[in-house]
Amino acid sequence: MKIARFATSGQDPRFGIVDDDEIVVLKADPLFAGFDTTGERVPLADARLLAPVIPRSKVVGVGMNYAAHRDELEYQAPEAPLLFLKPNTSVIGPGEHIQLPPVEGRIVHEGELAVVIGKVAKSVRVEDWRDVVFGYTIANDVAARDQMFADGQWARAKGYDTFCPIGPVIETELDAQNVQISTFVDGEPRRSGNTADMLHQLPELIAYISDIWTLLPGDLILTGTPAGLGGFTDGQTVDITIEGIGTLSNPARNR
Amino acid sequence: MKIARFATSGQDPRFGIVDDDEIVVLKADPLFAGFDTTGERVPLADARLLAPVIPRSKVVGVGMNYAAHRDELEYQAPEAPLLFLKPNTSVIGPGEHIQLPPVEGRIVHEGELAVVIGKVAKSVRVEDWRDVVFGYTIANDVAARDQMFADGQWARAKGYDTFCPIGPVIETELDAQNVQISTFVDGEPRRSGNTADMLHQLPELIAYISDIWTLLPGDLILTGTPAGLGGFTDGQTVDITIEGIGTLSNPARNR
Repeated sequence: MKIARFATSGQDPRFGIVDDDEIVVLKADPLFAGFDTTGERVPLADARLLAPVIPRSKVVGVGMNYAAHRDELEYQAPEAPLLFLKPNTSVIGPGEHIQLPPVEGRIVHEGELAVVIGKVAKSVRVEDWRDVVFGYTIANDVAARDQMFADGQWARAKGYDTFCPIGPVIETELDAQNVQISTFVDGEPRRSGNTADMLHQLPELIAYISDIWTLLPGDLILTGTPAGLGGFTDGQTVDITIEGIGTLSNPARNR
Repeated sequence: MKIARFATSGQDPRFGIVDDDEIVVLKADPLFAGFDTTGERVPLADARLLAPVIPRSKVVGVGMNYAAHRDELEYQAPEAPLLFLKPNTSVIGPGEHIQLPPVEGRIVHEGELAVVIGKVAKSVRVEDWRDVVFGYTIANDVAARDQMFADGQWARAKGYDTFCPIGPVIETELDAQNVQISTFVDGEPRRSGNTADMLHQLPELIAYISDIWTLLPGDLILTGTPAGLGGFTDGQTVDITIEGIGTLSNPARNR
């Protein structure tokens, strides 16, 4: 089931289930209120898709979670999952502009599978990880590469407004441990990999993270980017495709 | 004016203005709804004070913002303010227990002045910094010291549930650039300093941070800790006093 948050002209954002070329409108946010429908259907072509969720608490990032990416950056990663936080003010939806601040060095794309948490979750057991997952979406963990290393802390470099595009939808049924992620800039392939190659897999990540932080409904876990370095600049468009979810596309422009 | 968020038995949390030994009850959260009163007064002794704000978006930390603290850790800090994020799930109120996870090394207290943001704020000019401040409270930026250095990123070490006690109230009028901060463990003085000694002062911090991240009402900026290293353990109580605000007191216990 593909869940969308969307706007039609003159209306507040609503939630719905994508059914071919239509959206079946839901009464409320399904994260909190289930899947009751209003009876209305909206043509997909008439809707503007928005970020499918605005996290109330955390966007958790997992750094260096694919060996190929860790090695290309020559990063000495710890054994445990390397966690960082992005603020919810960095979240934008499909089609929205990534605004590039005037910084030294490249701004890079990181196409990633994002887990959408569905329940209050604390110290989840490895074998129960699926119970707290609402679904999956695509995220672009945008980063100002030089600032990551200048600051040491990644909060600034990865946290700018617009540096967390997500969408286009949340897929609630996905074999998330074996899907291909591909990133393109202006249509040219730049990165690709399969979630089967994560160093820390989803069950371990959810158990580990929820033991540190209580996870809340709508929290996101960005599970790391596969290999393939690359920046993008003003006027270019970054597309990230995950099979089974769709394509997240965002143009970039200078702030 | 001292703003409290409080509970009395059997009631949902409410907001009020502390007036001597009473609380003048407000109709709603003054961050969003102003200072209209209900006419009711509650004896302070009958109220349990709660975290005076639950940030909807960000708890921003500023690392190494006092020379004495930077030097005692021998930390090579960048010239610009060093920012990190704590999740809102780490926030607790006065009197609540800091829960110590079973980690290697010491868990340390960091008593700090916290700025409570009052407006949506983006790229605030240095001279306009006061316009976006709602008030000030006290924060304990608790950290698992060894994990800070093991991970490199501070998100985990500083982000555990209960690692951000705040309170007891928000003071809306304070000469925040010249107040004394003192930290005690079981009554013994451990750290102290004056906000006049910040390396990056409040006007610069608010301009710098709001240029990176849109700040939202209720966001907190933890402005760094003065000198005086020190851990605390199960059964001990950490008190932090800032003149003009009060004392934030939290006992600790093993998780």
